[in-house]
Amino acid sequence: MQILEFIAARRDGNVHLEADIRSFVTRLTAGEIPDYQISAWLMAAVLKPLTVDETAWLTMAMAESGERLDLSSLPKPWVDKHSTGGVGDKTTLVVLPMLAACGLTVVKMSGRGLGITGGTIDKLSSVPGFNLNLTPEEMIRQAARIGIAITGQTPRLAPADKILYALRDATSTIESIPLIASSILSKKIAGGAQTIVLDVKCGSGAFMKNLTRARELATALVDIGRRCGLRVEAVITDMDQVLGDACGNAMEVVEAGRVLCRKGPARFEELCVHLTGVTLHAAGKANSLDEGRKKATECLASGKALLKAEEWFEAQGANPQCLVDSSWAPKAPVRGVVKHVGQPAYIAKFDAEAVGRAVLRLGGGRLAKDDVVDPAVGIEVHVRVGDLVQAQQPLFTIFAKSDDDAMAVRAVIDAGIEVSPNKVTPQPLVLG
Amino acid sequence: MQILEFIAARRDGNVHLEADIRSFVTRLTAGEIPDYQISAWLMAAVLKPLTVDETAWLTMAMAESGERLDLSSLPKPWVDKHSTGGVGDKTTLVVLPMLAACGLTVVKMSGRGLGITGGTIDKLSSVPGFNLNLTPEEMIRQAARIGIAITGQTPRLAPADKILYALRDATSTIESIPLIASSILSKKIAGGAQTIVLDVKCGSGAFMKNLTRARELATALVDIGRRCGLRVEAVITDMDQVLGDACGNAMEVVEAGRVLCRKGPARFEELCVHLTGVTLHAAGKANSLDEGRKKATECLASGKALLKAEEWFEAQGANPQCLVDSSWAPKAPVRGVVKHVGQPAYIAKFDAEAVGRAVLRLGGGRLAKDDVVDPAVGIEVHVRVGDLVQAQQPLFTIFAKSDDDAMAVRAVIDAGIEVSPNKVTPQPLVLG
Repeated sequence: MQILEFIAARRDGNVHLEADIRSFVTRLTAGEIPDYQISAWLMAAVLKPLTVDETAWLTMAMAESGERLDLSSLPKPWVDKHSTGGVGDKTTLVVLPMLAACGLTVVKMSGRGLGITGGTIDKLSSVPGFNLNLTPEEMIRQAARIGIAITGQTPRLAPADKILYALRDATSTIESIPLIASSILSKKIAGGAQTIVLDVKCGSGAFMKNLTRARELATALVDIGRRCGLRVEAVITDMDQVLGDACGNAMEVVEAGRVLCRKGPARFEELCVHLTGVTLHAAGKANSLDEGRKKATECLASGKALLKAEEWFEAQGANPQCLVDSSWAPKAPVRGVVKHVGQPAYIAKFDAEAVGRAVLRLGGGRLAKDDVVDPAVGIEVHVRVGDLVQAQQPLFTIFAKSDDDAMAVRAVIDAGIEVSPNKVTPQPLVLG
Repeated sequence: MQILEFIAARRDGNVHLEADIRSFVTRLTAGEIPDYQISAWLMAAVLKPLTVDETAWLTMAMAESGERLDLSSLPKPWVDKHSTGGVGDKTTLVVLPMLAACGLTVVKMSGRGLGITGGTIDKLSSVPGFNLNLTPEEMIRQAARIGIAITGQTPRLAPADKILYALRDATSTIESIPLIASSILSKKIAGGAQTIVLDVKCGSGAFMKNLTRARELATALVDIGRRCGLRVEAVITDMDQVLGDACGNAMEVVEAGRVLCRKGPARFEELCVHLTGVTLHAAGKANSLDEGRKKATECLASGKALLKAEEWFEAQGANPQCLVDSSWAPKAPVRGVVKHVGQPAYIAKFDAEAVGRAVLRLGGGRLAKDDVVDPAVGIEVHVRVGDLVQAQQPLFTIFAKSDDDAMAVRAVIDAGIEVSPNKVTPQPLVLG
């Protein structure tokens, strides 16, 4: 394959051969293709999207570009859960122990946050002692023993995806459903996944801003997953408002602990129950979605999920008390409560993107790959779309490093809030 | 301007601001934008073409990215002639002295050949002693004295174009009319041009393979030139068959000399007369195209064009005898004549692209920027489309370094020849 012909074929919208895609991935992994040629191909692929076949070939080639985890020795059916990323999305911290408590094995490699969407690894990093550098061998051993293991991404798995993702991030070529889908799935396949439940976030606080795009991505993930021999279930959920109350690394771990104790926000608990139910059904541990949801609710009510989470935290070096006692969490020096001013009104909009940008501005996220995140800062949201708020009722609290930071983000969040004199019906949580 | 937003704007087909294009060009010239971001933008620009306004802004920004030649001290109106590149296209060598003999000043910077199309600099480099490294000051001095000067491209003029062109060549992003037009015109503007006559080649041996694309390019060049304050005349001419008989560096100089002595191929002389006529008319030296053509023919017939060419060769260090005596030309060691086999027939096709590829294969052109060209090799074509050929009549002669080379290219050219039992009408030379 001539690289110039390969680029020209994409530019002209011609379908690549599987062998050519494989050769492209092999050569770029070996560092044999200069970045400027890869990025020209990426832009062509954004504007002349890959077919489902091409995307599946690319996915498999990337999955096979490095080591692959072999999970076949695990005693119980294993599953993976993945979210496309949202603001305040700490679902993984709750759903993983729920699944393990229900008799599945969960082996998950998780990413760091980038832009306005947080990353599970950043959240868990705020917990003292939590070890996020398990080797593949340690992952498998722990998962076999307690049914749950998580680690940060290793450069040994799907290195081709790492090269392509870094370039996409630096060349405005993120926004392509086939490229997004192949990036997600290649890492999952390299990580040994067979059944995956995907939480496709949709709304202002997610990559997919509207339901049409979210449906396209969900459909692509299911189709491409199937061609790669995976079982993929996709759930589209709302991300127009933040998930739960807490948006910030340490405070999200605290909130996840509260949900495991059944003291968390109802809408967030509902999402965890739904995703767990879908997964149990997909993995054959429940005969229907309803039965799956019932088992999910039970494992929370019985305290089994909390017990599993404590076992998990302990296995990875953290104090299990962290889940029930928040005194470990670092406190930001500045704390500012913003209240509703004026007549009683209904919350019509509480923009998740604005909250995400505020957390980023406070230092709780990263704009560039090497930025250091601050675990203590964040935003706590006290109202939800549809709520009736009275004068002087707290809307949100800012946890900041400085007064300047707090002032700056207050305006950002305020601009994302709309109130109405009339009753407002919130968007349902599960959209598709 | 954020570079990622700039790339995203192009990707989404939004119109850039002039200031953003200018900043992009300034920063890429300073080496502040990595190649992979430039190439992502280039691919987006191929698939979401620049508007005429954007192209004019890009052209001016590139023209101003380095030094600019100021020709305003020249005593007579000055013009430039440019060809988009074809096989066997040695027109510049004839038209330049014709224009100077008719009282215009010609100051030209010329490129080296790349791919199947030859470059004037490569042709003149085969002439012993010909100095193609005139400084801008030497150019102006010589042009003021004898009305004609040529030099190779200098990195001091339009350096942004050099950076973009090298990347386009390496990322399959050549094929974009706005990018081609801005590349051509930016160099001309930096070189001080005011009036330009463009020979837009159309056919298998040119970048523009059909009349629609050639018209688009000609229109773009005229429109964009006008917005940049240039007077541009564009002529579209046939490049389905080669121009003249000779295709090869030294032998093309010899053929140019023969045309100046009125002993050259009629179709090629006709092109030189036409382009000179158009230019004289455009520059106000003739009241009509007919009058321009008449003056052009006269300057050939009177020997004034040949005298001017001799003066020119001498001024740039070459022996003026080279134009009338071909004994200086290097001879390739292998010479093979290919003849017509079978019944008498009409030539229906003599593919210029095949001849171009053959010359390239013989070593007379370059595939990569640093390839060294062989001045002695080439192809001499003995028939033209429409000719009736008899059995054993020579069709073409190969001048090669080795028998192997000769064998290899014979097949390439043979595959590009078609004959017909019926009379064939050749395509007109001037298409638009």
